[in-house]
Amino acid sequence: MVSSFLQSEILEQPESLRRLLDAEQANIERIARIIRSRSPKYVTLVARGSSDNAARYSQYLFGTINSLTAGLATPSTFTLYQHPPRLDDSLVVAVSQSGQSPDIIAVVEEGRRQGALTLAITNVPGSPLAEAAEHNIAMHAGQERSIAATKTYTGSLLALAMLSCALSGDSTCAEGLARVPDWVQAVAERADDTIRRAERYTYIEYCVVASRGYNYATAYETALKLKELTYIIAEPYSSADFQHGPVALVEHGFPVLAVVPEGKVAAELTVFFQQLKGRGADLIVISALEEALALAQTPLAIPAGIPEWLSPIVAVVQGQLFALGLTQSKGYDPDHPRGLRKVTLTT
Amino acid sequence: MVSSFLQSEILEQPESLRRLLDAEQANIERIARIIRSRSPKYVTLVARGSSDNAARYSQYLFGTINSLTAGLATPSTFTLYQHPPRLDDSLVVAVSQSGQSPDIIAVVEEGRRQGALTLAITNVPGSPLAEAAEHNIAMHAGQERSIAATKTYTGSLLALAMLSCALSGDSTCAEGLARVPDWVQAVAERADDTIRRAERYTYIEYCVVASRGYNYATAYETALKLKELTYIIAEPYSSADFQHGPVALVEHGFPVLAVVPEGKVAAELTVFFQQLKGRGADLIVISALEEALALAQTPLAIPAGIPEWLSPIVAVVQGQLFALGLTQSKGYDPDHPRGLRKVTLTT
Repeated sequence: MVSSFLQSEILEQPESLRRLLDAEQANIERIARIIRSRSPKYVTLVARGSSDNAARYSQYLFGTINSLTAGLATPSTFTLYQHPPRLDDSLVVAVSQSGQSPDIIAVVEEGRRQGALTLAITNVPGSPLAEAAEHNIAMHAGQERSIAATKTYTGSLLALAMLSCALSGDSTCAEGLARVPDWVQAVAERADDTIRRAERYTYIEYCVVASRGYNYATAYETALKLKELTYIIAEPYSSADFQHGPVALVEHGFPVLAVVPEGKVAAELTVFFQQLKGRGADLIVISALEEALALAQTPLAIPAGIPEWLSPIVAVVQGQLFALGLTQSKGYDPDHPRGLRKVTLTT
Repeated sequence: MVSSFLQSEILEQPESLRRLLDAEQANIERIARIIRSRSPKYVTLVARGSSDNAARYSQYLFGTINSLTAGLATPSTFTLYQHPPRLDDSLVVAVSQSGQSPDIIAVVEEGRRQGALTLAITNVPGSPLAEAAEHNIAMHAGQERSIAATKTYTGSLLALAMLSCALSGDSTCAEGLARVPDWVQAVAERADDTIRRAERYTYIEYCVVASRGYNYATAYETALKLKELTYIIAEPYSSADFQHGPVALVEHGFPVLAVVPEGKVAAELTVFFQQLKGRGADLIVISALEEALALAQTPLAIPAGIPEWLSPIVAVVQGQLFALGLTQSKGYDPDHPRGLRKVTLTT
């Protein structure tokens, strides 16, 4: 039984992602041609909240697939300090569900004023941010009624992956993109199981969410869902940063949600989470890998064979479902987190 | 009575910062001339742990003072994924106390291979990182025996501020730099008071540390000290990001450590922390501003008149002292956090 907008929007994602693939393919190829012709030196990413996590994902796409250094902007240098850095050799990419936050718009406007290429990825084509940017990609997620972003988050990720694929000029990546909705569908079909398994954690007050590389973004986004919806302190970490200090936190029963994709970071992450298990951590593991799932008190499987660069779009759906399950189990309202509005305006 | 290496190293900072100012001024001016002559398009920062927080501070220095976009590198694109982005138009700045972490060294080596300007800021001049980089700045902090970084953190910040000042070509900034040791001294003289005030928080298990702009780094570093030393979940936030979701966490008695510097972000931060107080937050405020300190259950004053760009070097000392006080109050060993070593090697 689907009992909340949040749940229905999580389950809608195979469909919203298919819509995005169909609707934006030609537009994204056109934008990629323009970007290639301009050869920007680096990418400046600007976003807040869930969209910031989508931007974090794209650092790995642009870096490893497109050889472009991509960094997250510091909006306050544009707004409060009013001393924006030079952006003229940059590609400025803004990500925002609503397209309304003044600080995000300010960075894009300044980039455009300086002659940088500007691109907005939004779910609201007529929004002020979409108007401010020279180029636009629409998420086609439909209205998102839950305050916690789900389908607009995966839409942002897929739009960025489509752009990175188009920029690479390597047509084989399109095959992976086309399969994303089916992989997400396979996770959505396990929704009841994930929601039920979250019940074990009803009384946790904090946890750490850790991964590395492409799925560093999944750690951030899953932690954000947990904070927004369940009011626990959920702190996201790169496994590498975690070893530089915060590992001191982990003792018997400490809950750690681990995202272990197939690919280049799997071996290192598996060793790391084995160490945490040795310290007594209670592990919730999102993975397709038997060896990683075997470490878990709570295994949350995703389909096997997903290329690492696309795995964040699938893995986060398990994170969303886990957060939904914990919200229900703690007895909170998934659609109306206290103190939040759908559109947040920061300067 | 000074009872730990940690405490003596916190109190040593006026002296270690004076040493750095004297020893590296000429070298930093020389490096700044080389950087200016090469006109890098952007800055790539690479660091882990406390040094990552120093890098975060420098994003605001380079952005607002030097008009240079500065972004944090994603080391795994260099190591695990082995697809490093282009860096040839970049200034690569690595910060590391020990100069030993393989992932940090890998980024500098790749930058140098591509012909980028490379600079290492370390406390160990002969370290592998110092060898890998073309240019070097030494912190002159002396040996740091406590596992938690304190004097090497403020040393990194001051070295970066000296570099930004030298790059700006504006000689007036040097006056501020010269006063930093005295401001830090004034905070160190309040050590007993801050340590005593921390006792109120003996039984907290989590908190949020929030600021914005230059002191976003202070929030990160104070949170890291709390995690390393007291095993509480301390999550750092930009006040702007906090409003995009995590504000839902705050209810009666929720502890929030707020850093409110004089300058451009003060008004916005004060309004934000007033709102959190309205939600029942217990505020620990590091500030020179009466209006901000008046909001606090626990006011931790810093001297008035510090320019905002230098305030993180002073404000963090209150954060260090608060973390030390909480460590003692909770009965933990400040010099030997569980599960940590002084040098952390990540790939």
